Amino acid sequence: MANDQPPRPKRRGFLKAGGAAVAAGASLGAGLATSQNALGKTQPHALADPQLAVEPFYGTHQGGIVTPQQSHTYVAALDLTTEKREDVIALLRAWTDAAARLTQGGTAAPLPTGDAADNKAAPDSGDVLGLGPCGLTITFGFGPGLFTHEGKDRYGLAARRPAALVDLPRFNGDQLIKEKTGGDLYIQACANDQQVAFHAVRQLSRLAYGTAAMRWGQSGFLSGPRGQTPRNLMGFKDGTNNPSTAKPPLMNQFVWAGASADAPWMEGGTYTVVRRIRITLEHWDNTELDFQEQVFGRHKYSGAPIGKQNEFDAVDLKEEDKDGNPVIPENSHVRLSNQASNNGAQILRRSYSYNDGTNFYIERWPPWRQETEYDAGLIFIAHQSDPRSGFIPINDRLAKFDMMNQFTTHVGSAIFAVPPGAKPGSYIGAGLFET
Amino acid sequence: MANDQPPRPKRRGFLKAGGAAVAAGASLGAGLATSQNALGKTQPHALADPQLAVEPFYGTHQGGIVTPQQSHTYVAALDLTTEKREDVIALLRAWTDAAARLTQGGTAAPLPTGDAADNKAAPDSGDVLGLGPCGLTITFGFGPGLFTHEGKDRYGLAARRPAALVDLPRFNGDQLIKEKTGGDLYIQACANDQQVAFHAVRQLSRLAYGTAAMRWGQSGFLSGPRGQTPRNLMGFKDGTNNPSTAKPPLMNQFVWAGASADAPWMEGGTYTVVRRIRITLEHWDNTELDFQEQVFGRHKYSGAPIGKQNEFDAVDLKEEDKDGNPVIPENSHVRLSNQASNNGAQILRRSYSYNDGTNFYIERWPPWRQETEYDAGLIFIAHQSDPRSGFIPINDRLAKFDMMNQFTTHVGSAIFAVPPGAKPGSYIGAGLFET
Repeated sequence: MANDQPPRPKRRGFLKAGGAAVAAGASLGAGLATSQNALGKTQPHALADPQLAVEPFYGTHQGGIVTPQQSHTYVAALDLTTEKREDVIALLRAWTDAAARLTQGGTAAPLPTGDAADNKAAPDSGDVLGLGPCGLTITFGFGPGLFTHEGKDRYGLAARRPAALVDLPRFNGDQLIKEKTGGDLYIQACANDQQVAFHAVRQLSRLAYGTAAMRWGQSGFLSGPRGQTPRNLMGFKDGTNNPSTAKPPLMNQFVWAGASADAPWMEGGTYTVVRRIRITLEHWDNTELDFQEQVFGRHKYSGAPIGKQNEFDAVDLKEEDKDGNPVIPENSHVRLSNQASNNGAQILRRSYSYNDGTNFYIERWPPWRQETEYDAGLIFIAHQSDPRSGFIPINDRLAKFDMMNQFTTHVGSAIFAVPPGAKPGSYIGAGLFET
Repeated sequence: MANDQPPRPKRRGFLKAGGAAVAAGASLGAGLATSQNALGKTQPHALADPQLAVEPFYGTHQGGIVTPQQSHTYVAALDLTTEKREDVIALLRAWTDAAARLTQGGTAAPLPTGDAADNKAAPDSGDVLGLGPCGLTITFGFGPGLFTHEGKDRYGLAARRPAALVDLPRFNGDQLIKEKTGGDLYIQACANDQQVAFHAVRQLSRLAYGTAAMRWGQSGFLSGPRGQTPRNLMGFKDGTNNPSTAKPPLMNQFVWAGASADAPWMEGGTYTVVRRIRITLEHWDNTELDFQEQVFGRHKYSGAPIGKQNEFDAVDLKEEDKDGNPVIPENSHVRLSNQASNNGAQILRRSYSYNDGTNFYIERWPPWRQETEYDAGLIFIAHQSDPRSGFIPINDRLAKFDMMNQFTTHVGSAIFAVPPGAKPGSYIGAGLFET
């Protein structure tokens, strides 16, 4: 089509400007320091500008696991369509390079300049130009299908599948939708801007054309007063009892995978479970406040365990009232998910709310409403050193007994082995393919 | 169930704290001024904290029309299920009161305190406690079904339907989904936080139980570098050529409805068209840069009209190249939507991107792909004094000729009469029911 078009001015100038903006984005860390030096203490808020935040990409661990949680996410799973091992490696190399650029505020690849740019598709959709890194992290994971697909060892990796990368069992109440479940490859982009998070997955997914295809994608968000535990859509603070990411021993125990005999390449990685949990918000909103609190085992407004005053007061599961009844109900969410109820197991939850508008819904719990309802809830994301001692037993107990199940339905599910971080020059998953 | 529960401590203390937080939210304007006085010019960024922004609710016009665009929206339409005129009035009164509170940072209704609060559902879901007003605006509108529903005049309003509130014609290429189209009542909540926007609609929708039911709801967002025109998901700046909201004569001409003989109650209101426009982002991303620019009629990176240097350079539709061909293509979006192509008509676009994850999609344009694709695009929102001279002729031309149609599909549509703002003590739409 280009031949028949009227001549157009060169856009070298525009592209130069674009390139400069990208370059500035890529070195925002330095820019921030300069700004700080020049202005001293007169602009303390400039440091907190969420658009300017920048997270490292390369390192011992991948970002987005113990990184302080950003305000938005886009998570996605892809299915591999190639039969060739080298295609998978090439994709992981391309993803690593692009992710390293994107997290630092760059485009997925350098934008061509001048006439050379015109007659081909740009290597980046350009929709977040000028937005800054926004604290973007990109986390990659491997689903069971990378190792074995319908009984077939497509890439010579079957023997290297970690025992901890189990197929999740069916849990009580699961109503999983196939199109929102599973996946061979996982991308989790988290950023302080919704479009920046999606932009990352969009560019990476595009790099996979011909090698892997989107299975599902999901946008998520997290709102909260600054410096406080955010409330989820049920109105309760979510994440209070997480193991502290500031304590490396806890992270080594509960989050980071060790070098097991069957999967030494996973050392410094983690196992990630993603669940799409729809919440019947209409039903919840018409539920008595005290029943909501019994369901959670916490007070709604303060976030304190029932019977306590403050959010971070310890959860005392042994406390009884004067009649000898437990103060925190037997089937409350806090009790059932507490480490004391799970042989000391802990998982690092890093969940987001989701909101996909409305659709027609048939509720499985009384009053069996059939009407247009919110398609909203929680993208539950949990990282752990081993799901066999983490998510699986914890969720098995919750699925059976949690009072919250009256209001929640698990409609999507996936599990991934998230390998350690990459070194510059190498790529995510190199240990799996090359050692 | 409450009788069998173990005794619980009173939460008056917690609720007092909650109430104080709400009160602080309601007077953030004052708080901000104090902060400004106390700190002088040392904290210029504190003024720009998007959580602290507060917009007035009562006034000549409703908010959310010429209000500088917030970063998020949740728009919804409800269908009236009552047959009683007084139910509709009661709902509008309740909505007005709740919206006045919510926009100022309050809860939908005061939270009860002490034991009285426990045994009933709280009047607010509580999920944005402490978040501040976040610049929330709430805009209400009336769809054709309020006036006539399946030929029936349910509320004695048929004779008061404005001629300008037409049923939208079918446009070329429309592929409207019934469940995302139409509606008797419209709520548009815009805020600097995704959860705050949704929270508003959620409380208002709950107030409608028994009177109206959700027909569709949709979350939207807008990302952009500070102080610059945001880019939509196609990567182009969107909204450059909007009529300036800073120019009241332009707003009076193109946005605000006058006191027509058939609908004097609409004076100071506007007519709002909402279209859900799905964009085949995968297809667009693989399209040559110069073709993308021909489609828009603008340069992608600078936002300038083709042949110009800067974003805000005037669009010169008469300019020709040396061969006599138009520099801005005949079927480009900018030319077809320009007021010079539309008898001088202008509309105030205030659109948001949407991103509902992925679903299986059959594309109607080559290459007729059938695969899992992004369910993402634009929630097009346009305000105008009369859609018969605004959206309808403009979109009729676009639907027939716009090159962009290769990449976009209109899948949802609605039109509403948005009445003027309310006076304190009155309610939105009072002029329709009471004069």
